[in-house]
Amino acid sequence: MSVDSYTNLSAIAIHGGAGTILRANLTDEKERDIRAKLTESLEAGNVVLEAGGSAVDAVQAAVVVMEESPLFNAGKGAVYTHDGSHEQDACLMDGATRNVGAVAAVKRVRNPILLARLVLDQSTHVLLSGEGAETFATTNGMELVDDQSYFDTEFRYQQLQKAIAREKKENKQHTQLDHSDVEDKIGTVGAVAVDRHGNLAAATSTGGMTNKRHGRIGDTPVVGAGTFADNKTCAVSSTGVGEYIMRAMLAYDIAALMEYKNLTLEEAGHIAVMEKFTELGGDGGVIAIDALGNIAMPFNSSGMYRGWMRADGTSEVKIFKE
Amino acid sequence: MSVDSYTNLSAIAIHGGAGTILRANLTDEKERDIRAKLTESLEAGNVVLEAGGSAVDAVQAAVVVMEESPLFNAGKGAVYTHDGSHEQDACLMDGATRNVGAVAAVKRVRNPILLARLVLDQSTHVLLSGEGAETFATTNGMELVDDQSYFDTEFRYQQLQKAIAREKKENKQHTQLDHSDVEDKIGTVGAVAVDRHGNLAAATSTGGMTNKRHGRIGDTPVVGAGTFADNKTCAVSSTGVGEYIMRAMLAYDIAALMEYKNLTLEEAGHIAVMEKFTELGGDGGVIAIDALGNIAMPFNSSGMYRGWMRADGTSEVKIFKE
Repeated sequence: MSVDSYTNLSAIAIHGGAGTILRANLTDEKERDIRAKLTESLEAGNVVLEAGGSAVDAVQAAVVVMEESPLFNAGKGAVYTHDGSHEQDACLMDGATRNVGAVAAVKRVRNPILLARLVLDQSTHVLLSGEGAETFATTNGMELVDDQSYFDTEFRYQQLQKAIAREKKENKQHTQLDHSDVEDKIGTVGAVAVDRHGNLAAATSTGGMTNKRHGRIGDTPVVGAGTFADNKTCAVSSTGVGEYIMRAMLAYDIAALMEYKNLTLEEAGHIAVMEKFTELGGDGGVIAIDALGNIAMPFNSSGMYRGWMRADGTSEVKIFKE
Repeated sequence: MSVDSYTNLSAIAIHGGAGTILRANLTDEKERDIRAKLTESLEAGNVVLEAGGSAVDAVQAAVVVMEESPLFNAGKGAVYTHDGSHEQDACLMDGATRNVGAVAAVKRVRNPILLARLVLDQSTHVLLSGEGAETFATTNGMELVDDQSYFDTEFRYQQLQKAIAREKKENKQHTQLDHSDVEDKIGTVGAVAVDRHGNLAAATSTGGMTNKRHGRIGDTPVVGAGTFADNKTCAVSSTGVGEYIMRAMLAYDIAALMEYKNLTLEEAGHIAVMEKFTELGGDGGVIAIDALGNIAMPFNSSGMYRGWMRADGTSEVKIFKE
């Protein structure tokens, strides 16, 4: 899913998470719902771009749509931590300035990407965490949800119960990551865009891993791992097992391959994800876009909810590999 | 301060922070104390290396010495947050495996680098934060300090009072970073080493920024920003203004320049720190080492506490530019 040599056209690409997504496990109804929501997200971003808006505003708008949906592990559909709460991470990066806003482990923020935007705009800090991040939110006029019940969904609650039961049955140390843990975190959302001025931006938002504890922070709020944007190379949003994405510096690695080896977005994405990240043992993928509007969406898992849309009206939404 | 083409010799380099360090502001006594402590840190790391120990063990030993000293902004000498507490970050990366252990915003850990080591060894997660990280510590047998009084020092307390007074006087928004903020955080500590087997490691530990609030997390615990190690390129520990170090992906950028442009450690360090990081507006520096034992210590501030030591007995400790 890459289209080369588009120019002077705005474009947006999104993901709703990568992992073991098999046709057999996805009902027709759920597949239809997911495709519809991905399309709605793309349209929300594209409206901003078509009106001459910025890439930052576009990726934010696209991510908000997915955060508002219970279908993805971000915002409304965020997974449960071990103690039954929700702790979310988000990051937004402006490729024109390389400014970043990121938040980690926030509990009462309906749209974590909007708090990341507030950090980008109003703080000289890059990464705020926990209660401190929420104090920053209220100080700057953002309303928090009264309690976490807004984020409660039966589907995610059952996921937590299953994860806890599995842990007990297997007498598994919580220090071991296994395939089930990975499956329980599918649904991180992200968007990358180029606006008509050639500015890039990337945004990522996630509820993290079902049954997580110990204040675990994943790749999403980490600049260069889960999220990166620089006008001179590309904008990238990652999804998959955060520990490997961080060790691979996955998002920045694509930019570095373009800048230092003069590779195309497609080539750089392939080497970073399909070769280096895979060799490290990582599982997941990225969406990436460059200033010419080229889009690459490499992933090494069986599926990734994803799509793209251009100002010329062309678009595509896909779930499985083919 | 770089020496080329050493081979088959273990070596270690350390820093105790970069910033506006002027001869005029440093008493002879304090300079002597700092030089002595840097030497002690180098020796602690070198003893491990000479005994055939690993680079990971060596950088950890070197950092512990600086954490135990009130002279640096890490461990015992950690700065105060706005509310009068201490919140520390640390990261340790093994260049042989690219495994990482990192902790953010821990309050009752005497040696944060030892908790980072515990995360490296005992958790499949990379980054643990806050109370969750401390629960992980006690679950794994690490004793915490009873309260934060262990970290209290008169010098740092006065720094906090000055920072608060300055903020009030200037009616400054805490969202503005200025030169004084930067000065108040000098003293992050770090170490990089190559052992006789050619394995690399990097470690960084910090109390962050005086008067910090909002759960601000800096570059130290962020893989690729404050800390990075990969046997095939280099090990790096950064110090300076964390927000810029994160946006620059400073530590990984040096590795990427070596891997993708076939630059030497010296060349890559110069471009990443003296050109790219400086153009971005960043203030600070790094220590870096490669598998051949080459050492580079580029910084763009007026000074950086730093030193290196090799198994052949040669060593150097410096504070100012020349």
